[in-house]
Amino acid sequence: MTLEDILAFDAADPLRDKRDLFNIPEGVIYLDGNSLGVLPKATPDAMNDMLRRQWGQDLIRSWNSNDWINAPRRIGDKIGRLIGAAEGQVIAADSTSINVFKALSAASQLNSGRLVLLSETGNFPTDPYMMEGWATATGNRMIAELVEPSRILDRLAPDVAVLLLTQIHYKSGEVWDMNEITRHAHEAGALVIWDLSHSAGAIPVELDKCRVDFAVGCGYKFLNGGPGAPAYIYVAERHQSKVMPVLPGWMGHASPFAFEDSYTPGQGIKRFLCGTPGILGMCALEIGVDIFQSVDMGVLRTKSRQLGDLFIALVEENRMGFELASPREADMRGSQVSIRHPGGYAIMQALIERGVIGDFRAPDILRFGFTPLYTRYVDVWQAVSTLADIMNSNDWCDEKYAVQAEVT
Amino acid sequence: MTLEDILAFDAADPLRDKRDLFNIPEGVIYLDGNSLGVLPKATPDAMNDMLRRQWGQDLIRSWNSNDWINAPRRIGDKIGRLIGAAEGQVIAADSTSINVFKALSAASQLNSGRLVLLSETGNFPTDPYMMEGWATATGNRMIAELVEPSRILDRLAPDVAVLLLTQIHYKSGEVWDMNEITRHAHEAGALVIWDLSHSAGAIPVELDKCRVDFAVGCGYKFLNGGPGAPAYIYVAERHQSKVMPVLPGWMGHASPFAFEDSYTPGQGIKRFLCGTPGILGMCALEIGVDIFQSVDMGVLRTKSRQLGDLFIALVEENRMGFELASPREADMRGSQVSIRHPGGYAIMQALIERGVIGDFRAPDILRFGFTPLYTRYVDVWQAVSTLADIMNSNDWCDEKYAVQAEVT
Repeated sequence: MTLEDILAFDAADPLRDKRDLFNIPEGVIYLDGNSLGVLPKATPDAMNDMLRRQWGQDLIRSWNSNDWINAPRRIGDKIGRLIGAAEGQVIAADSTSINVFKALSAASQLNSGRLVLLSETGNFPTDPYMMEGWATATGNRMIAELVEPSRILDRLAPDVAVLLLTQIHYKSGEVWDMNEITRHAHEAGALVIWDLSHSAGAIPVELDKCRVDFAVGCGYKFLNGGPGAPAYIYVAERHQSKVMPVLPGWMGHASPFAFEDSYTPGQGIKRFLCGTPGILGMCALEIGVDIFQSVDMGVLRTKSRQLGDLFIALVEENRMGFELASPREADMRGSQVSIRHPGGYAIMQALIERGVIGDFRAPDILRFGFTPLYTRYVDVWQAVSTLADIMNSNDWCDEKYAVQAEVT
Repeated sequence: MTLEDILAFDAADPLRDKRDLFNIPEGVIYLDGNSLGVLPKATPDAMNDMLRRQWGQDLIRSWNSNDWINAPRRIGDKIGRLIGAAEGQVIAADSTSINVFKALSAASQLNSGRLVLLSETGNFPTDPYMMEGWATATGNRMIAELVEPSRILDRLAPDVAVLLLTQIHYKSGEVWDMNEITRHAHEAGALVIWDLSHSAGAIPVELDKCRVDFAVGCGYKFLNGGPGAPAYIYVAERHQSKVMPVLPGWMGHASPFAFEDSYTPGQGIKRFLCGTPGILGMCALEIGVDIFQSVDMGVLRTKSRQLGDLFIALVEENRMGFELASPREADMRGSQVSIRHPGGYAIMQALIERGVIGDFRAPDILRFGFTPLYTRYVDVWQAVSTLADIMNSNDWCDEKYAVQAEVT
């Protein structure tokens, strides 16, 4: 493959105009949009309007006049369109962790009598942590259990109330077959919660078609909603009215402004709201989500596959001593590729210093996220070329890259 | 009292320069800062830097380079200084409702064996709703109970695990004696949670001195952190290490970036973090909180009392048929005054149309918040003068004010 071939891919890319909607820093090849998406160019102006006009001038009246009150449902429905959810089933609110807790507690109510909360070892840890939390909340009546991914299907015994899985693994990028796993879980009498943090905005998702029960996800990765953006929760319409929320904040009440002493859950998805929504975060999230409203997720997925395939081909062509830590088969892989190397930490530091930003996950994983709306084929080419320079010159062995900084 | 007297008050006001730090819309007298505080002038520039430089340019590196990772603890400590909490006991996170849930569940662990969660009827409803939620979570082992405010002390029997009260009532502005109630609760073996949503930034609070166990509060009222700003939780140092959080999100883990399968709580207040914090909301909240760092809360409280006294005196002097719904005694009253009138809704609409913004709480309460950092004595004078015009002319009886809009 030559650089001309690569440039031809970019020229023929049906998504090529989308890149111009984002702020990409000069001299940076950003392959970490699976951790924190980039800034949409429209966000600063929207936030400025939010601050100066909506908050600054209209003040408290904005809850009505600028429709703050409906932001969680409005944005939820827009996210729903990306994940195959009909209207009224998704609401933007709180953090992913809190929404996992809502889903676990709701699933436990719906499937009472069954006591096991099941997930896989190596899942993104806030999912199993919240399982532990919900088990603790129930006085350890419920039991949090993790098994190896390969044992999940076998473990679907009649004691399992709910199966919680992240559709695309944060470290390897491996994709669970949502339709198949959901079907198996239902056959075994379990409900499912899918964590879509690495799926929404990255691959087509069909929650309704797969008869999923609950889903959650974050707004700051592929959705480009900004650091710590509000998260979202999907609750299938058939379940909504049967759940009495254990996080029954006033904004989920049937009539929040009646200020009643006791809780009456709101209709539908509204009861999965809790406290007052963070409106500044909602503002930025909506800009990110709006960009996807005109994107064909099938077209996006095709490019995502090709970016990953290209990265793998170029890395292997250069024989740099990396081991592939993601599925080789594009359909089995989300919008990222991970590779292993014992010097992974130092190599990533050397890459970042040269403007190629991915991230490192202990002990030896280098992660590269491919965000089809703003990653070009030529970015992949240049990233691998920079990586090859670092490896061939042994620059990564410089001791300045060796000390692992404590992130917290 | 003459207008000259009033203007002399403003000229002698030691806080008079603070008003210039805020954006007050032209032609508006804003007496609703107890619901949503106004925009600090510094916020748009800070947010612009947050968006364009920290997120837009520095991207994922900002968690370290711009210290996003420590924002919850840093801002928590700054709020701590306003509420009498030594460092390491307050963290900014989530919503008030979620923080109430954390505090209720923690208090139940610390006081195990006791089963009653106690609060008062008429409390701001998210507090009792979260009590119901926590009771539901425990399989109704814990019991949520509300009694009339006058019966709270009598109800402190040996079955009460925790007493949850809002220090300043959202509707009447009445103040509970934090020291006295906390002492009574402790003597009865109960723990206390104080909701400071209407206290922080409004009156001096002494959590440590009063030996309070837990406190929560919101960032968008007197703290001017913006709509739906992050909330905060205080956990007394003596309790922190004894609590196993039931909302154990990954950001509260001892080593979040070790991505371990099981939860090990972080040291100290950190374990009361849950998911990824909303950094845009934190940015605006910090600006609001920073303004208070150079304010003497005693000086602020003196002005707050005087603004309320002046409002009451002027309203009563004008004999407009209102009944006082707040304590007449300034020490018993937070930084607001509420008055009753059967036509309250229409009167408030007429006021708002004339640029005097307070709010209405069913069935008959008009609320006026006095935020000493930006409310002048002359604002109170003009607000009452506008109110008198509306009442004397019967303008409020115009049918355009009669239809009560549905807020949600």
